[in-house]
Amino acid sequence: MQRIDSLQALRARLRPLRAAGERIALVPTMGALHVGHLSLVKEARERADRVVVSIFVNPTQFNDSTDLESYPRTLEADLQACRDAGVDFVFCPSAAEIYPDGDDTAVEVGRLSEPLCGRSRPGHFRGVATVVTKLLIAVAPQVAVFGEKDFQQLAVIRRLARDLLLDVEIVGGQTLREPDGLAMSSRNQNLDPEARAQAVVLVRALDAAEAAVAGGERRAAALLERVRAEIARAPRAEIDYAELCDPDCLEPAPERLVAPTLLALAVHMRPAAGGPGQTVRLIDNRVLPVQAQTRGDHPS
Amino acid sequence: MQRIDSLQALRARLRPLRAAGERIALVPTMGALHVGHLSLVKEARERADRVVVSIFVNPTQFNDSTDLESYPRTLEADLQACRDAGVDFVFCPSAAEIYPDGDDTAVEVGRLSEPLCGRSRPGHFRGVATVVTKLLIAVAPQVAVFGEKDFQQLAVIRRLARDLLLDVEIVGGQTLREPDGLAMSSRNQNLDPEARAQAVVLVRALDAAEAAVAGGERRAAALLERVRAEIARAPRAEIDYAELCDPDCLEPAPERLVAPTLLALAVHMRPAAGGPGQTVRLIDNRVLPVQAQTRGDHPS
Repeated sequence: MQRIDSLQALRARLRPLRAAGERIALVPTMGALHVGHLSLVKEARERADRVVVSIFVNPTQFNDSTDLESYPRTLEADLQACRDAGVDFVFCPSAAEIYPDGDDTAVEVGRLSEPLCGRSRPGHFRGVATVVTKLLIAVAPQVAVFGEKDFQQLAVIRRLARDLLLDVEIVGGQTLREPDGLAMSSRNQNLDPEARAQAVVLVRALDAAEAAVAGGERRAAALLERVRAEIARAPRAEIDYAELCDPDCLEPAPERLVAPTLLALAVHMRPAAGGPGQTVRLIDNRVLPVQAQTRGDHPS
Repeated sequence: MQRIDSLQALRARLRPLRAAGERIALVPTMGALHVGHLSLVKEARERADRVVVSIFVNPTQFNDSTDLESYPRTLEADLQACRDAGVDFVFCPSAAEIYPDGDDTAVEVGRLSEPLCGRSRPGHFRGVATVVTKLLIAVAPQVAVFGEKDFQQLAVIRRLARDLLLDVEIVGGQTLREPDGLAMSSRNQNLDPEARAQAVVLVRALDAAEAAVAGGERRAAALLERVRAEIARAPRAEIDYAELCDPDCLEPAPERLVAPTLLALAVHMRPAAGGPGQTVRLIDNRVLPVQAQTRGDHPS
């Protein structure tokens, strides 16, 4: 495995491989790698001859400077994990490499960036779209893998890759979970033990909604009520949003669900009152397998 | 010469050439090719093994639908001109090819897009930046050539290519002129004979300003007064803007010029009163060769 810090060196290293017909896969990350990231690397390995992992904590996608400062950084461990996972190249650019002197260009995806995390984190997806475009252009992979945990981000990236005529297949890698069901996230390591224990309410809320759908519930309001009740069981949890949307366009679901529907959650886990900890924002999602209604189907 | 209408076919055609180490140049155009475009093709030929000319009248850069409709379209003549000029590929995509179904991604360059034509034509440079990014990604040339007549456009494109980490050299091709000095432009063919004759005031205004600078004039207001007086000699001409700017950042020049300064002009040429013609907007520019002031240099 080779660590590469400059764009020029990366291009020089990839050029002959590409000319020799090798397929290149990119797994963009912000570091603090966990087993979830490594499963994305595995997806990448299965689809390409060479795997590039980029590690870049992108400042422009943080709308909150405290969040940027507290984002975990574990570069040495990340490099070791990549080595162990059979990654070929780890690209660790500086901010100056990604945002050249005088940088003033942004990529914006419209409607898909507006709801959910776009509403909670103004400018977030503009930052994501811009940095991902730069990385896709710089690495020019045939395939790039992103986690489905960041469902909206994946939708935004699929859209921009298609719209900007990037010759790349965007692959979604499934969410990996801790034994209690908590979705793996680099931010989990910022949870204090009590918040960590309570964070399981996110997946429990998804489970509750899915169980309700399996039981015939189709009313959006009733499903969201179930979700809120589940989250309310964790005193440290505060809902940022809990929404039902069309999984393709992310527009709000109808009052009565008639097709597979995205349940998207963002929850703030607060530190202990008077404690030194920080609030950690977690997200999770599931596409609820609602069947298109057929004659004779009369859900409650 | 080969005409190619689909992105997929273009990529398939260029891939083996690129793998064989050939250099590819792109000259993006909106068609209605004139000798100015062909000089850009010549620049491209000198710098690459293969020249691609794209012909695409990009709807998103027209802020005025009448302007879009009246933009000249001369595809058969354009193809013949490309054949004669030794172009290898003419890429003529449909709008659906460049703006895929559901397209919702835009590229925006900030400060450079704001003044001059950016102020007169809201959204224009967003359209330009978006389509040029798509074309640069689709064709992936090592070099791309744009006319210096569109000075601000060239600055915007240089900025986005650098910021988006596109591995391409952006080359400016000098403005070609008609015998009377009028800058060549596809829009010139929309001028009626009288407006065509009067359109020479743009270059005369540039000449007058340059002569004044040569005579020692450094006051921005006085130079712009000279420019306005020259344009006023054409009854059909109406100034959209006449501005002095820093040629790098396009910010307004100081009251007293101390360094090379861009004089940028946009002028509406009106049709004859009661006539059937249309208003045609023309632009032109020159970097006035103001020397940095030295001791003992006391301009008026």
